[in-house]
Amino acid sequence: MRAVDVIQRKRDGQELSREEIDFLVDGYAQGRIPDYQASAFAMAVFFRGMTPAETLALTESMMRTGEVLDFRDLPGPKADKHSTGGVGDKTSLVLAPLAAACGVYVPMISGRGLGHTGGTLDKLEAIPGFRVGLSLAEFRDVLRRSHLGLIGQTPEIAPADRKLYALRDVTATVESRPLIAASIMSKKMAEGIDALVLDVKTGDGAFMKSLADSKALAETMVEIGRGMGRKVAALITDMEQPLGFAVGNALEVAECLETLKGRGPKDLESLSLELAAWMLHLGGLTATLDAARARVRDALDSGKGLRKFREIVELQGGDPRVCDDPQVLPRARETVAITAEKDSRVTGIGCRAVGQAAMLLGAGRETVDSVIDPAVGLVLHKKVGDLVIAGEALVTLHVNDREHLDEARALIKEAVRLGPEAPARTRLIHHVIS
Amino acid sequence: MRAVDVIQRKRDGQELSREEIDFLVDGYAQGRIPDYQASAFAMAVFFRGMTPAETLALTESMMRTGEVLDFRDLPGPKADKHSTGGVGDKTSLVLAPLAAACGVYVPMISGRGLGHTGGTLDKLEAIPGFRVGLSLAEFRDVLRRSHLGLIGQTPEIAPADRKLYALRDVTATVESRPLIAASIMSKKMAEGIDALVLDVKTGDGAFMKSLADSKALAETMVEIGRGMGRKVAALITDMEQPLGFAVGNALEVAECLETLKGRGPKDLESLSLELAAWMLHLGGLTATLDAARARVRDALDSGKGLRKFREIVELQGGDPRVCDDPQVLPRARETVAITAEKDSRVTGIGCRAVGQAAMLLGAGRETVDSVIDPAVGLVLHKKVGDLVIAGEALVTLHVNDREHLDEARALIKEAVRLGPEAPARTRLIHHVIS
Repeated sequence: MRAVDVIQRKRDGQELSREEIDFLVDGYAQGRIPDYQASAFAMAVFFRGMTPAETLALTESMMRTGEVLDFRDLPGPKADKHSTGGVGDKTSLVLAPLAAACGVYVPMISGRGLGHTGGTLDKLEAIPGFRVGLSLAEFRDVLRRSHLGLIGQTPEIAPADRKLYALRDVTATVESRPLIAASIMSKKMAEGIDALVLDVKTGDGAFMKSLADSKALAETMVEIGRGMGRKVAALITDMEQPLGFAVGNALEVAECLETLKGRGPKDLESLSLELAAWMLHLGGLTATLDAARARVRDALDSGKGLRKFREIVELQGGDPRVCDDPQVLPRARETVAITAEKDSRVTGIGCRAVGQAAMLLGAGRETVDSVIDPAVGLVLHKKVGDLVIAGEALVTLHVNDREHLDEARALIKEAVRLGPEAPARTRLIHHVIS
Repeated sequence: MRAVDVIQRKRDGQELSREEIDFLVDGYAQGRIPDYQASAFAMAVFFRGMTPAETLALTESMMRTGEVLDFRDLPGPKADKHSTGGVGDKTSLVLAPLAAACGVYVPMISGRGLGHTGGTLDKLEAIPGFRVGLSLAEFRDVLRRSHLGLIGQTPEIAPADRKLYALRDVTATVESRPLIAASIMSKKMAEGIDALVLDVKTGDGAFMKSLADSKALAETMVEIGRGMGRKVAALITDMEQPLGFAVGNALEVAECLETLKGRGPKDLESLSLELAAWMLHLGGLTATLDAARARVRDALDSGKGLRKFREIVELQGGDPRVCDDPQVLPRARETVAITAEKDSRVTGIGCRAVGQAAMLLGAGRETVDSVIDPAVGLVLHKKVGDLVIAGEALVTLHVNDREHLDEARALIKEAVRLGPEAPARTRLIHHVIS
């Protein structure tokens, strides 16, 4: 078999066999197939797409280039959530302790933020001392003890995906549904989970801008997961405005802790509860989704979720006082308020611009090599539809470095759109694939 | 400017600017842009095509990565012919001396054969002593003295094309019309010529199988050449059977010498004369094409073409006795005849299989690194439509190494199709773009 022939078959719209896909993926992971053939292949896939069977084979093949975790010895369901990423999207820090507190094992392997979107790892690292770089042995141990483990992508998991993703990023081959789906699922399916709930964001701040594209991606991923014998559901959720109010790592951790104390933003609380309920339900802990909702709600109200959060912070080396006192988190030197000039309604909040503004302040990465500042970011004070009084603060910027302050301020002013009338309310969950 | 953004614009069907194309081509030639971005770009071009303006810009950009020859000091038109390649396609060795004998300067830079198709360089090297590896200074000197120079691709000419072609070959991105056209024209336009006649082959033995594809490629190349201010015409010519009878390097040289003596196969003679006439006419030596045809015919009949051939052989270090005695050429150890089993007509000769058979005998290259044997090959004894008597030789194989003899014989038996009736005659020149 020659790589050039396999590329040509894909180029000409033929369906590749599992053997051909294995040949490409293994060869690429092991360096027998060079980057220039992999990028030509990725571009051919961009144009030709992949059949469900090809996408499944690609996912399995990439997964098998690395370690596949096995937690079958742990006495309970293993489940995780994956989000396609958005602005202010911090549900993991809320739902993971809630689900773990309800008896689900949650072996969560997360990523870092890039561009206008944040990443769970960066948020966790805002907690002084918190170690996301556990070895797989430590991860297993923490998971066994607390039902929860929160680590970063390791070189052992799906190395072919890691290599291919870096290549796609510089060859304009990121935006391909089968490649996106296989990339996500090859990592998630390596986590040793029985069940997965996907949070596919849709809208201005999401990777997928249209509901149709988001649904198609969700369906592809659900199909892959089921093809690999797992329980999978997908929620298509709104990213037409940031989730919650805080954008920036320490600020988001503080908001999550408030949420675990029952005082969080309504949208963040309800989405976190819903996703956690799906984890319980898919994991088989409850007969109905409603029963799962009730158990998760109880874990929140009783403070079990917050206790679980404290437990995992302690187990992973972080300062548990963060749960009592947000002052433990890093804080920016100054805050700058952006105020409304006249009475009005918030008619829209551009997610992408808000994320970009936070990135400019140092909360996010422009490139994978950028260094971030955990303390900085911004806090919105309004959601879409809210009433605004002249002189009232719309957004508070948390600033350490004033270099890009003006630019960030201009972005925010553009992002928060005001008008005389509140727009029609949009739903937080647009669609469920179960 | 970032390469990934340019690739993405092409991927999304936008027209690239000359600056963007220069950025990619120069960057690639100089190693700033890696192979993996160039191959992704080539695959995007495969799917999206290129506008005439983009194709022209690509050609000029690739040409300018290397030396562009300038023969304006030579007192007369400079013209060349380029063929897209076929089986038994040996017109260069006939038309180049004819055109040079008529006063055209012919600075011909040729390639080697690959797969089932032959290359002019390999044929020239079958002449003992003939040097195709002249320096550009020697090339200029030979051209000045004899109106003719015959050399191989040098690293100075269009290095970006050389690099890109090697990459396309292993990434399934060869079959793209703008990339093919730009590759050919970037080299030809660097030759310092005023006029170019293109011989675009069509049919089973050609790169382009259909007349429509051949025409489209021809039009693209004519458009490029004219965009660069040259006189260009294209002939779409038949490659549904080999040209002439001989396939194999020394065998083809012998056939060309016979042709220059007025005893060559009719198809080879008439196509060579017609292409040479176009060179004269485009070069402005005659007011009409018919006048050019007459002058070329006279150069053949008077023996001036043969004398020019002898002159260039001598100037480039070859043994001029080859013009008197074909025994000077290398000869295979044995010949093997393939005979007809019953009376019939030749209904078809599969070019690809004939070329493949010659390659198996050692006349051609399976890969660019293959070593060829100048002596071996095959001679057909019939053209399509010819009458065949049982027991008569259809093809004579010239063999040094019997390793693949059976395979070659089987290919030939399949290639030469016999039947009760002669098929309708096909034209040698299907179409002219002038």
